[in-house]
Amino acid sequence: MTSVGHRTGERRAIGLDIGGTKIAGAVVREDGTVIAELTRPTPEHSDTTTTGKTLLGITERLHADHPEVLAIGVGAAGLVEWPHGLIRWAPNSAYRDWPVRVELEDATGLPTVVDNDANVAALAEARLGACRLRDMVLLTVGTGVGGGVLLGGRIYRGPTGRGAELGHMVVDPDGPRCGCGNHGCLEALASGTALTRMGRDAAADDPDGLIATLARDEPGGTVTGETVTRAARQGDPTAQALFTRLGRWLGVGIASLANIFELEAVVIGGGLVETGDLLLAPARAAAREFAYAPGVRGVVPIGPATFGAEAGVVGAALLGLEHAASSRPGRHAGTP
Amino acid sequence: MTSVGHRTGERRAIGLDIGGTKIAGAVVREDGTVIAELTRPTPEHSDTTTTGKTLLGITERLHADHPEVLAIGVGAAGLVEWPHGLIRWAPNSAYRDWPVRVELEDATGLPTVVDNDANVAALAEARLGACRLRDMVLLTVGTGVGGGVLLGGRIYRGPTGRGAELGHMVVDPDGPRCGCGNHGCLEALASGTALTRMGRDAAADDPDGLIATLARDEPGGTVTGETVTRAARQGDPTAQALFTRLGRWLGVGIASLANIFELEAVVIGGGLVETGDLLLAPARAAAREFAYAPGVRGVVPIGPATFGAEAGVVGAALLGLEHAASSRPGRHAGTP
Repeated sequence: MTSVGHRTGERRAIGLDIGGTKIAGAVVREDGTVIAELTRPTPEHSDTTTTGKTLLGITERLHADHPEVLAIGVGAAGLVEWPHGLIRWAPNSAYRDWPVRVELEDATGLPTVVDNDANVAALAEARLGACRLRDMVLLTVGTGVGGGVLLGGRIYRGPTGRGAELGHMVVDPDGPRCGCGNHGCLEALASGTALTRMGRDAAADDPDGLIATLARDEPGGTVTGETVTRAARQGDPTAQALFTRLGRWLGVGIASLANIFELEAVVIGGGLVETGDLLLAPARAAAREFAYAPGVRGVVPIGPATFGAEAGVVGAALLGLEHAASSRPGRHAGTP
Repeated sequence: MTSVGHRTGERRAIGLDIGGTKIAGAVVREDGTVIAELTRPTPEHSDTTTTGKTLLGITERLHADHPEVLAIGVGAAGLVEWPHGLIRWAPNSAYRDWPVRVELEDATGLPTVVDNDANVAALAEARLGACRLRDMVLLTVGTGVGGGVLLGGRIYRGPTGRGAELGHMVVDPDGPRCGCGNHGCLEALASGTALTRMGRDAAADDPDGLIATLARDEPGGTVTGETVTRAARQGDPTAQALFTRLGRWLGVGIASLANIFELEAVVIGGGLVETGDLLLAPARAAAREFAYAPGVRGVVPIGPATFGAEAGVVGAALLGLEHAASSRPGRHAGTP
């Protein structure tokens, strides 16, 4: 770090991460250090008013404790209209057409930007991850598959923020139904939900197998992705074969993205990346198998994310600071 | 058109289109009008030296007849290194690492840009097609499937020109082998080559069917995509079903692209678009079926290209003029 980098590293913003199960807030330094954190469960009836109150509560508390913050950044699951910061729709929540940016700016007077959660996580990885990246894709493999794209160092959103829905590229049109209603999306084949579905099928096919046996000891008595992971780690060939299938689908999707874009790296985040090579080894093999003209174009490297659960708040704060820096003084309510 | 538009419409460039079967050159006005044309077959042994001589011959002849041209633009099949204008590799040609930009600039003294053929065709469609478009994809469906992407009015190439290989996104990893060596690329399922392959299978399955019958009257006695097209137009249900399959695969690929990007339109060019709704109706149906969150994101419109075989030379000339205008005087050999 240069001395200039150190000095700018002292600038701080509030980062907020709106997810289906919790809303996380943090005060974050420009170098990615989290100084304070505050997390609340997403209200069970996640309508716009109730969720808005929770978000505002977290924000005002962090702002009161840290009046030195320069900006607010928000990462939210779902379709976020850019640059207006209107959350149009989220697959697992009840809020609709929620004007998050305006609400937070009115309440705090701070310049605010709102973006998709995978977009801001991609920004955190590209700017502060293991390697500095300008052209990269982040895929978060958890309950679903989220995607963020950086092209030439900038988040690609499309003209109004509806782009980069990478989890819904179609990798098998005759494949299983996705949460979005379509069939064969990457999310339907390479997510935690897919692992659970495949694990349940495997347990039904072989009630004496390790997956079914482990599941009987689970609190609910049913197979989850966690059950399959434990079975695979104990050497169960059925569970390992499920990871090979899951990882292969992930790699097929990555190969397509690497053929569509020109990428330095693909970074994998989300809960499932904690399974390490169970997921990543078959993904790398498939990404190599389906790479176009690998002798000329190379094969895209695939690595685990540097940031875990904090990628959302860190990336959101980073985006907030970048936009506060690029907007003119006194114009913070304008278009970032 | 304003009077300024009319005046700038008078600027002219040489557009060149390097394909697997022919090399086309033209003098083109900024408004897309072709003033002169010169076409030669691509040399049978399409090595760098021989093909280079043919290209230079066309260029010098057009330049001698039209000394008023301001620039040269080239669209070439294959992987073109940007901005250096080095054709690294083309799937159906023998030339490799061919420094086209430098060769043409040295021979003519004119500022020159070299890009992928589908990229320049996309530019022609976006700037001069039926609708002015800033965010669009062009797919050329011919022997293969080529792709060009415009984002925010600019061609997306990736940092060194290796991006936008849309024909090699994987739509069916267990599908047929592609010319590139992989399996289940869009090009392997939704191209003229795929139509020929499916038509031959259908003729083998039903030697008394219309496809097989029509093929016996063909010069070579074998099924081509043209045979299947004629059978479909004569109402043959087998041939029509093949188009439905082909168009569906095209629509699946388009749906993925519409979920990955945020597009105003997808434009279809290439030889197969002349089959009209035989191809486009099933493509539109599948693009609608696999659209993500269509209530919020909409469904991307799919239309035929405005330019036919001339898209390459027109788009190439247009790119040449845009770069000549943006480069400083006396700096034409520099990075465009």
